[in-house]
Amino acid sequence: MQSFNSLILDIRKHFNDSLRKIQINDKPKYLYDPIRYSIQTKGKRFRPVLLHLVGRANNVQPDILMTMSLAIELLHNFTLIHDDIMDNDNMRRGKKTIHEKWDLSTAILSGDGIYTISQIILSQIPNLKSNVFSYFNKTTLEICEGQALDKEFENNYTISEDMYISMIEKKTGALIGASSALPLIFKHKPHHIVKVYEKFGRCIGKAFQIQDDILEITGDYIKMGKSLGSDILLGKQTMMAIKANNKYPSEWEDLISNSEKKNLTNNISKFLNDKGIIEECKLEYKAYFSASLEYLNQLEDIDISELVQLVNMLEKRTF
Amino acid sequence: MQSFNSLILDIRKHFNDSLRKIQINDKPKYLYDPIRYSIQTKGKRFRPVLLHLVGRANNVQPDILMTMSLAIELLHNFTLIHDDIMDNDNMRRGKKTIHEKWDLSTAILSGDGIYTISQIILSQIPNLKSNVFSYFNKTTLEICEGQALDKEFENNYTISEDMYISMIEKKTGALIGASSALPLIFKHKPHHIVKVYEKFGRCIGKAFQIQDDILEITGDYIKMGKSLGSDILLGKQTMMAIKANNKYPSEWEDLISNSEKKNLTNNISKFLNDKGIIEECKLEYKAYFSASLEYLNQLEDIDISELVQLVNMLEKRTF
Repeated sequence: MQSFNSLILDIRKHFNDSLRKIQINDKPKYLYDPIRYSIQTKGKRFRPVLLHLVGRANNVQPDILMTMSLAIELLHNFTLIHDDIMDNDNMRRGKKTIHEKWDLSTAILSGDGIYTISQIILSQIPNLKSNVFSYFNKTTLEICEGQALDKEFENNYTISEDMYISMIEKKTGALIGASSALPLIFKHKPHHIVKVYEKFGRCIGKAFQIQDDILEITGDYIKMGKSLGSDILLGKQTMMAIKANNKYPSEWEDLISNSEKKNLTNNISKFLNDKGIIEECKLEYKAYFSASLEYLNQLEDIDISELVQLVNMLEKRTF
Repeated sequence: MQSFNSLILDIRKHFNDSLRKIQINDKPKYLYDPIRYSIQTKGKRFRPVLLHLVGRANNVQPDILMTMSLAIELLHNFTLIHDDIMDNDNMRRGKKTIHEKWDLSTAILSGDGIYTISQIILSQIPNLKSNVFSYFNKTTLEICEGQALDKEFENNYTISEDMYISMIEKKTGALIGASSALPLIFKHKPHHIVKVYEKFGRCIGKAFQIQDDILEITGDYIKMGKSLGSDILLGKQTMMAIKANNKYPSEWEDLISNSEKKNLTNNISKFLNDKGIIEECKLEYKAYFSASLEYLNQLEDIDISELVQLVNMLEKRTF
């Protein structure tokens, strides 16, 4: 039996091959150079991997899964390009962001272009029903809502943990939920079944985001491939920041307003560690991973073992 | 018989009513306030009017036409919001642009949101085939290509008239072509018929853009509802600028580099008028309007009279 690790590597390799084979026009270079650059970055391809594993468990044809997963990944790319502008992020997946390497207009336009290409790719699936397009775009609108809440929450220290969870459910959970649900929608499965897959993915998404925020503080800059600690400097809310602000309001305020920028990540990391907040947030994301497994256990007639292994693998990730 | 003018007013009124009835969530306000603001601006609604007239001539149900035309107008809104950022335009349809009234991030995100809503609306048409989505998104990609070329052409005084025409065919022609072709694609008409409608719309689009550039120089700021003359300050190419630069290179360079900003529009308008360039460009756009009528004349089995009247009405517009 193929080991799970080699299965994941295999899916990722096939996915990256297919991504490279997407026909992108040569000109105008103003539009297509940054699109090529963005597509060629090395991502973890976690959403495509999830979609393929769900699809395998439900006997969806591999070529259909590949097309869907390309559309999902390009939709993800589009949101990253525009979010990076809004959040002033300079690095993404180990490379300069598009607005940093080119400029603002290039980044806006190439983001628009990638989203459009993702839908052109989706429409290549034969006999696709319009409910798939509707679901795909409703997912995007929810991601936009999540990004809007994220911007509204900046520098707002009255945000509760529940409000934060609702925000990341939209910003991160919606797309991971869609990656899990799309193969089932394609197969015309009943609504209540689709919803179980969607909730499974959304739980993973929430876990993934809380974990990501921790890794941004404690993680390896090179492996993460993006600038660390920038969220806190921007006044972004994270589960850790909310807990720190609730429990130690004056110490937390002192810390983030008085730390020098170059020491900020270290100082914050030490504070959150000493106060047990990182440990507390780890318990939170582990709870969401466990909740995702409970949704899986509601599913009958499919072999959930690969999906369980994926959740376990994600829980152990270090970047 | 209803006069043509009152028919157009009627279509526009129904369209505006339907636009107002689109369900837009209340929150997050960061996303939906600017979307509501953008939708409520007063546009000429020329693309929806064209789509309705083509649909009437081909017996497509009015409610289907309304849904399609809403999708087209929202797609148009999305491109305006993002283009206004890229082109630094502060006024649109008589109101502040979104990035001017709010900020950059708001404008990027609400543009993304409107484009997404346009596709959710499109997917509400019952039993819609995926080729409609494919066509809709290919149109958007072509508009992105047009905007990319427009950016590439800035301050490039080697751009020929042909290159300019190819650019506006994408930037303006593609969407007007799609407004004309979509009802036929929906009705599964053969490719060669769809193409005639598309080319009819694209000719109108090219005429419309050349005419727009002239009105931007000679027109009424209030009626046009946008800042005039800004294109030339940005080094944007127009048919007039290309002709002026080709025929009177040194005089033209002196004019655009030495005019004070506040007199620029007047000085340029006088120069282009005195040299006969405005008249020459008027002949060009009239030729494209005539070419559009030739495509109409290729169509059999439909009553083209309303479409002919629309072209005549457009040709006479002053804003």
